[in-house]
Amino acid sequence: MIVVVTPNPAVDVTYRVAEQRIGETQRVLDLARRPGGKGLNVGRVLDAGGTETHAVLPLGGPAGRWVADALDELRLAHTDVAVTGETRTTVTVVDDHEHPTMFGEPGPRVTAAEWDAVTASVEWLLDTAGPTALVVSGSLPSGADPAVVGTWVAAARARGVLSLVDCSGDALLAAADAGATVCKPNRGELLEATGATDERTGALLLLGRGAAVVVVSRGADGIAAHTVDSIVEVPAVAGVTGNPTGAGDAATAGLITALAARPTDASGPVVDESALRTAAAFGAAAVLRPVAGEVDPDDVRRFLTSTDTDTDPAPSDDRTGSPA
Amino acid sequence: MIVVVTPNPAVDVTYRVAEQRIGETQRVLDLARRPGGKGLNVGRVLDAGGTETHAVLPLGGPAGRWVADALDELRLAHTDVAVTGETRTTVTVVDDHEHPTMFGEPGPRVTAAEWDAVTASVEWLLDTAGPTALVVSGSLPSGADPAVVGTWVAAARARGVLSLVDCSGDALLAAADAGATVCKPNRGELLEATGATDERTGALLLLGRGAAVVVVSRGADGIAAHTVDSIVEVPAVAGVTGNPTGAGDAATAGLITALAARPTDASGPVVDESALRTAAAFGAAAVLRPVAGEVDPDDVRRFLTSTDTDTDPAPSDDRTGSPA
Repeated sequence: MIVVVTPNPAVDVTYRVAEQRIGETQRVLDLARRPGGKGLNVGRVLDAGGTETHAVLPLGGPAGRWVADALDELRLAHTDVAVTGETRTTVTVVDDHEHPTMFGEPGPRVTAAEWDAVTASVEWLLDTAGPTALVVSGSLPSGADPAVVGTWVAAARARGVLSLVDCSGDALLAAADAGATVCKPNRGELLEATGATDERTGALLLLGRGAAVVVVSRGADGIAAHTVDSIVEVPAVAGVTGNPTGAGDAATAGLITALAARPTDASGPVVDESALRTAAAFGAAAVLRPVAGEVDPDDVRRFLTSTDTDTDPAPSDDRTGSPA
Repeated sequence: MIVVVTPNPAVDVTYRVAEQRIGETQRVLDLARRPGGKGLNVGRVLDAGGTETHAVLPLGGPAGRWVADALDELRLAHTDVAVTGETRTTVTVVDDHEHPTMFGEPGPRVTAAEWDAVTASVEWLLDTAGPTALVVSGSLPSGADPAVVGTWVAAARARGVLSLVDCSGDALLAAADAGATVCKPNRGELLEATGATDERTGALLLLGRGAAVVVVSRGADGIAAHTVDSIVEVPAVAGVTGNPTGAGDAATAGLITALAARPTDASGPVVDESALRTAAAFGAAAVLRPVAGEVDPDDVRRFLTSTDTDTDPAPSDDRTGSPA
């Protein structure tokens, strides 16, 4: 079982309109509503891949109740910490002509006491549910102290449970400081958080702070695992086009699936080429699905097989899905 | 007390962004959420003007619960009919550069049994609460049978309670057929519903179907009351600029305030110049407020005084608030 913390969950709403136009009233022709936030996408992909998960998330207001009900309907285990603020909504507007437009609410103010309750839930699950890993994924609500992410990582580390953190900014640094097993930013997030101008330097900065491994997703350029004395790289699965939204979250799910399946030796888990290929295969499978947080396990298996022989890099056209 | 039916209430959400752009991710800088739908705007303006109201509305899902809670907070009396569909949300995106962009969800499917429950609530209030008027305002959810509006009008008529209907399309025709005291479309809605090419012909068609009076809001060109043998017109209040959203709903509130204050004689209420001036004053007062559903009673009084002498038509520039 894998504990997945989503610090800033969302109701992800998609509006289909005939044609996006600024300054006009547009009838919503079709409406989809899904529980969102990167951690919930990771959890849903893990579930689709047959890995049991338990979500931990702060939820508030009617939007928060909607997320809780939706997770029940998806039969995903979750522990909700009630917060007084309202869980955010994201609205994505799509048509058949333009790129999607996304409006992101900032998320609720979560108080220190409410974060303490999230930490208590994480510790309780670590103590009682026997998880193989802790995943923390996604942004913090605005105004949150990034140190909370370090608290969760430290709780996992103290119990010998591996941790993977896909956050940005100071939350990523806090995860490294607390000794996260894997920090998994994308390249842009890595450079922004560390202030480095190249990937290797940024990775070394996180490793120096305490991360055991830094896995960097490079979009169409594949995925790389950095340790102090090694870099392992795999290309993205070639020729996959579709919806790249959530592909990085699927790659996270693939990576943690690979890592959690193996016993951790004294020096921590080995993020080898095989683990990265699993991440890339999950990411590519997600690109084939129309919405984030889904993969077809048959697609994952197919890509795992094909990547044994196919090492062409994916095209860098940004309309092509970026599997990691 | 005035009973106000809102057939398709909404959560009206406004997102402020730095600059509206299609195909990009935009951070929501500021977020406002209000109970919406034309009837609720009318009810809030009536309340602001010191007239007691009772809202009747179908509500479903978390959005419906949010509307109910918001009405409680506003201390507006309401009878909610629980429906299985989810109450709609409208999202309006604003910045300092462009006209607002509005995304309107279609609203829930409301079953025949659920409409029967709405009708039962209307009848119960007519029988027990001693209302002076019934207002039906706003669109029906998609797929609803417009005949329900006629049912509510007939219920009021059978009890000698005056009714005012601000609906469009077949719902407006159904209201006229049922003998609504006042049908109050805007000019575009009147022509669209009746198929007429001029206002007088359209009004005569509704009067022929059974409406006692047809009041047509003409935006910046004022407001007119048609009966079979008369037309009374007043201009919009001149020189008022601001936010025209909800001005028509405020005008409805002003009109019903004027009509409900007088005893109805055997031939029905007289929609005279004084009543229309009250409507125009409420509409103009709403233009001065940044959001729909609000007026300052001092503004209403000021405009009522000024319109006694000032009969200049308002400018027709559509950025100018249209008080009706």
